[in-house]
Amino acid sequence: MALIVQKYGGTSVGTIEKIENVAEKVIAARDAGHDVVVVVSAMSGETNRLIELANQITETPEPREYDVLVSTGEQVTIALLSMALNKRGYPARSYTGSQVHILTDNSHTRARILDIDESRMREDLDQGRVVVVAGFQGRDEQGNITTLGRGGSDTTAVALAAALKADECQIYTDVDGVYTTDPRVVSDARRLDSITFEEMLEMASLGSKVLQIRSVEFAGKYNVRLRVLSSFEEGPGTLITFEDDEMEQPVISGIAFNRDEAKLTILGVPDQPGTAYAILGAIGDANIEIDMIIQNVAADSTTDFTFTVHRNDYDRAMAILEETASTLNAREVSGDKAIVKISLVGVGMRSHAGVASKMFKALADEGINIRMISTSEIKVSVVVEEKYLELGVRALHSAFKLAEAAVV
Amino acid sequence: MALIVQKYGGTSVGTIEKIENVAEKVIAARDAGHDVVVVVSAMSGETNRLIELANQITETPEPREYDVLVSTGEQVTIALLSMALNKRGYPARSYTGSQVHILTDNSHTRARILDIDESRMREDLDQGRVVVVAGFQGRDEQGNITTLGRGGSDTTAVALAAALKADECQIYTDVDGVYTTDPRVVSDARRLDSITFEEMLEMASLGSKVLQIRSVEFAGKYNVRLRVLSSFEEGPGTLITFEDDEMEQPVISGIAFNRDEAKLTILGVPDQPGTAYAILGAIGDANIEIDMIIQNVAADSTTDFTFTVHRNDYDRAMAILEETASTLNAREVSGDKAIVKISLVGVGMRSHAGVASKMFKALADEGINIRMISTSEIKVSVVVEEKYLELGVRALHSAFKLAEAAVV
Repeated sequence: MALIVQKYGGTSVGTIEKIENVAEKVIAARDAGHDVVVVVSAMSGETNRLIELANQITETPEPREYDVLVSTGEQVTIALLSMALNKRGYPARSYTGSQVHILTDNSHTRARILDIDESRMREDLDQGRVVVVAGFQGRDEQGNITTLGRGGSDTTAVALAAALKADECQIYTDVDGVYTTDPRVVSDARRLDSITFEEMLEMASLGSKVLQIRSVEFAGKYNVRLRVLSSFEEGPGTLITFEDDEMEQPVISGIAFNRDEAKLTILGVPDQPGTAYAILGAIGDANIEIDMIIQNVAADSTTDFTFTVHRNDYDRAMAILEETASTLNAREVSGDKAIVKISLVGVGMRSHAGVASKMFKALADEGINIRMISTSEIKVSVVVEEKYLELGVRALHSAFKLAEAAVV
Repeated sequence: MALIVQKYGGTSVGTIEKIENVAEKVIAARDAGHDVVVVVSAMSGETNRLIELANQITETPEPREYDVLVSTGEQVTIALLSMALNKRGYPARSYTGSQVHILTDNSHTRARILDIDESRMREDLDQGRVVVVAGFQGRDEQGNITTLGRGGSDTTAVALAAALKADECQIYTDVDGVYTTDPRVVSDARRLDSITFEEMLEMASLGSKVLQIRSVEFAGKYNVRLRVLSSFEEGPGTLITFEDDEMEQPVISGIAFNRDEAKLTILGVPDQPGTAYAILGAIGDANIEIDMIIQNVAADSTTDFTFTVHRNDYDRAMAILEETASTLNAREVSGDKAIVKISLVGVGMRSHAGVASKMFKALADEGINIRMISTSEIKVSVVVEEKYLELGVRALHSAFKLAEAAVV
């Protein structure tokens, strides 16, 4: 008998039929003798419907009122799921984020969880009830409704699991686990039985968006056992582990990629302190997130910068960069939207030399030119022309033998 | 400078355009120097949409979960209206029933308000903000979401007005006031500038459903100045007054009618103590509401009972009555669904003899046979055949000269 927190996302509760299906999965866990807390998102499409209503009034709704509006989406789902459970003779009670005192800061639309009072949930569990909690939302000190931002339901689930010291936090999605890469690109991509937290963080931030990144950080911080499973198929899913759980790690766990980036370059700026800040500070001030940054070695008294941003921010970023260029008297500004980033991820590469060079060779063998390179302790990322995405990912998947199960 | 509570129902906030229109009406009151608290219902159709979702799962959802579900309807409206006000430069804040501590009992789906903590609203008003509150909902002692039942937004508005000691509570609807009778039946029906609380109670319970009856009782109890106005037209509406506000009352204020009743009769039951209870208690036990009750004088050792119920309850009531009849050895049971009730209402009739006889004569002149009669201090009700409804109402409207403004 264990305490399990289950989380079902928008597509898993997108219709009444799917909500009934979720009720069956919850009941299976109850029948196996477990206590269950369920976290649900809004029915798919509902959040967009609500935002569309707001946008008919204003493109820039107050964040406080936006949160009051969109938080109704999950509230509908918790009620419906509780009804479905009660109908089947499994007593259940629904709670909004406010009602179970998910205390957050007051950063509306992107609040962070500060504290959870688990006493009310514990009481229901002790009475044999399933507890159904609205994901994605909480309340601040003043009782204002807050939301955690898109994907925040994962964070809610992990935070509840931490507060309740749950035995496992199960994230149900429309995929049956974490794969070595996207199966739509590489047909023999393999589901991983387990992946480390650090790898998962890199995979998530690099575009394999199975789990919201903050929820993974949260799970790591509070030592929550996290598992990704399918809402629609049976199977063990992928367990997210701490690195030291494992005796030995495969060198590479997976290949992530991101089609949403664009790169910008500024050439011939003064090679002196303050230049990087002058260029990138202006971009950051406009709330544009920067991903990769590369500064080439200066050939004369000037230097060059290249960085990537989300493709949607490209035009704004370019306008700002052109202004900066004129202030700094730069030689030239250029950009490219037709790029992709491909990343190898694996904690095992820490103790294995030659991962990067093997990667570059595999790409060169296919005639793929590398435009940018960036490395961290457990990943190597390259930027290549967009048209080489599928070819590059397949070449790397094959070169690192990811279709074969790792020997543990 | 006054403090005004305004309430807008579902049709008044049924579209984004209408919500923007409500924002303009609120702003007009702000520009006139008033502090404003606004109570809104769910957008028309929304509550039914939510109930339809629940009914796809079960015809009998738990009342607790039903309340969690349907209370989202008003929450959407408060956020949208606040956005519309903020957009126009009028700072506004939305609150759910829970957030302004509308404390109710725990009778889910038909809770009663016990207490309101007005401090939070007062703070916003002092800061020059419009306060936008979700109607129809509250919370119980344990923090569970409750709803007041359909039409409960009127009650919320009156309760807030009482708690805040507001100068006026304005109920905006799709009619521009209370009329002497339904203008669809009598074309020269006249809008009343004012009507007493008692008359309003009789009018409402008799079928002129402009205001929810509980809200009128509440307003009377807490001495709240209540006004009914149109959301869509300019005009002073109808003020609901206390009787002693007025120097003199017209004899008759209006004519109400109700097409939703059906009558049942049981003949030849023992004329002895306990018979009325045996007959009507069984109906009440089945949660069927009884309106008129008439017991004829006994001719021998037996007596006859006739009573009316809502037409939807007719079949159930008849089944119960037939069972009772067999137990009591009654002579006969009969019923009629093709009836209507027409009522004259007016506090002035207390001091004026002959209202009933004038009413009966007006109906007799049109050849309308009266099937049942029931009187109270300020009303006379008759039951007639359904086909005589329009003819009867028009005859009475004309006989009591209701199209002419009363001399005050």
